[in-house]
Amino acid sequence: MRHVDVLIIGGGPAGISAAIWCKRLGIDCLLLEEQSQLGGQLFNIFNEIIDYPGMRTKNGIEMQREMVKHFVEMDCLYEVNTKVLFIDERSKTVKVKKQAKEQEICYTYLILATGSSQRKLGVPGEQQMIDRGEVYSASADGERLKGKTVAIIGGGDRAFEGAHLLSSKAREVYLIHRSTRFKAREQYVERIISNPCIKVMTDTEVTAIHGDRHVTSIDLESKNKEYKNKEYKNKEYKNKEYKNKEYKNKEYKNKEYKNLLVDAVLIRLGVAPNVDLIKGKVATAQNGLIVTDDVHQSSNPFIYAIGDSCTTPLFSSISSSAGQGAIVAKQLSSMLNI
Amino acid sequence: MRHVDVLIIGGGPAGISAAIWCKRLGIDCLLLEEQSQLGGQLFNIFNEIIDYPGMRTKNGIEMQREMVKHFVEMDCLYEVNTKVLFIDERSKTVKVKKQAKEQEICYTYLILATGSSQRKLGVPGEQQMIDRGEVYSASADGERLKGKTVAIIGGGDRAFEGAHLLSSKAREVYLIHRSTRFKAREQYVERIISNPCIKVMTDTEVTAIHGDRHVTSIDLESKNKEYKNKEYKNKEYKNKEYKNKEYKNKEYKNKEYKNLLVDAVLIRLGVAPNVDLIKGKVATAQNGLIVTDDVHQSSNPFIYAIGDSCTTPLFSSISSSAGQGAIVAKQLSSMLNI
Repeated sequence: MRHVDVLIIGGGPAGISAAIWCKRLGIDCLLLEEQSQLGGQLFNIFNEIIDYPGMRTKNGIEMQREMVKHFVEMDCLYEVNTKVLFIDERSKTVKVKKQAKEQEICYTYLILATGSSQRKLGVPGEQQMIDRGEVYSASADGERLKGKTVAIIGGGDRAFEGAHLLSSKAREVYLIHRSTRFKAREQYVERIISNPCIKVMTDTEVTAIHGDRHVTSIDLESKNKEYKNKEYKNKEYKNKEYKNKEYKNKEYKNKEYKNLLVDAVLIRLGVAPNVDLIKGKVATAQNGLIVTDDVHQSSNPFIYAIGDSCTTPLFSSISSSAGQGAIVAKQLSSMLNI
Repeated sequence: MRHVDVLIIGGGPAGISAAIWCKRLGIDCLLLEEQSQLGGQLFNIFNEIIDYPGMRTKNGIEMQREMVKHFVEMDCLYEVNTKVLFIDERSKTVKVKKQAKEQEICYTYLILATGSSQRKLGVPGEQQMIDRGEVYSASADGERLKGKTVAIIGGGDRAFEGAHLLSSKAREVYLIHRSTRFKAREQYVERIISNPCIKVMTDTEVTAIHGDRHVTSIDLESKNKEYKNKEYKNKEYKNKEYKNKEYKNKEYKNKEYKNLLVDAVLIRLGVAPNVDLIKGKVATAQNGLIVTDDVHQSSNPFIYAIGDSCTTPLFSSISSSAGQGAIVAKQLSSMLNI
């Protein structure tokens, strides 16, 4: 069976950094990536990256190119198209599948750099929509969505920011949220509530996405809850105008089901760490993140975690992922007595 | 009095990263640097930098150039040649001096990015030697030190690595350490002990550095301790040959004072965090490092620390400093409610 001192699962910025640092420190190391290319979430960054000190890039692809170039120049060992099927933490072995071939790899230390993924609605039609490539960036796809009717699902910063960005391009924007409480920053909420081009629907869940070749409509279910005035009064929203605007949306309140004609759906439910592989094998926090100490060791002394699998979205960045890669490699170098 | 939301002291990679991130997040921020240029310890890196993911540079100066370019393009506010004289943590004010002019700056949050410095011997002639520019890099100054007699002071990895690198260039290399215990890795120690071109002097302290235009000799004081055989037996050094070689140095053992003719002195006593400004105002650990939590807050809720002022040399890197800058800025953005 193949053995490596350090096995890294995941080839985003955290995993790439850990591999570069392992190589630099003379550690025998292999990185596994499920996709056909290294880069992870860099492929989802469509705007300019201005916050990785010393290096500005037009977008995530350009950053991916530079990181992979560095990684390859350093002769870091890696396998793409390689899915980890199972981690056996007792025998310190992982079972992987590349194309049809399965094999086992034995590790001394395991680094989980599995990142995070956009949360999904889990409703009929959603996966088909994604598979058709109907995945939009509010900042980059303004032209593509020009004149369209767009539904944005979610109640956090990214949902509100997306609604704001698209309100000047799209024909109509619906912001649909399953609760009356928003996680988004107050100033984002205020900007949307006071924007006449955006229809906010609260207490409303999307139950299906329809369309064969492209999205044509969505099914909605409103919770038919009474508007709890108190809930708002006690929160920070003291602006009456804003309150009154918000609850103009009564028309949706008392309806139980509704089909809404839309041309595009943007799902903005936040991210969830990719921890399915390790569930029950290391301690995780309530938010799903792997719990680590300051050198990124998990509750299992042979398993470490870096990047978005152990970092809240608030503190997630390419810079901090790269820094965590350095720290974990230095720690393992001293554990391995190199 | 000038007020800023975030005041950063120190313009090395950690401070530069924090400033770029503050700007990126819309935080009112000012960075102060004592030297005439930003970059901090980047100026001391003479070898290729291969461990900052995505960006390889020939040396620290090239990295400094790229980081400062980014910093300046982002319109980050900063002052160079500006020494912080005093931090009044009660009034949240710092007194600074630029050229002859003193002024006070008031902060909401303070970020200490003061880095670390090489430890000094603290003996007569040392500062004069440094001021004359007689500061060498073992890796970069091989040619400059060719045929010279060189004394390397210290017992850690860098001292041993320096001795190894120079042994093939210099005429004679002395490795002088005040104890018989070395902090350096065993394989480094073994390599030096078995190298006939290097004379190892243990239990020996340097008490003065002589020379007017350049170093000519050093004064040594040996502790005149009996060689404690046991101390070595109990340590990892089991190789007899090595032990016998080491204690050929008896000639120095029984002498109390000695003047040794040398052409160059390399002081390799390790680094100490630059925390004089904040001593007694925030908690520090036994090793002198500022104690911080996982968002880099110190024991004072308005004072944060990043980079080498709070990171052990083992975990110090440009990557981790940049990552810490990102984290502290994100934390302060949420504290400042931006």
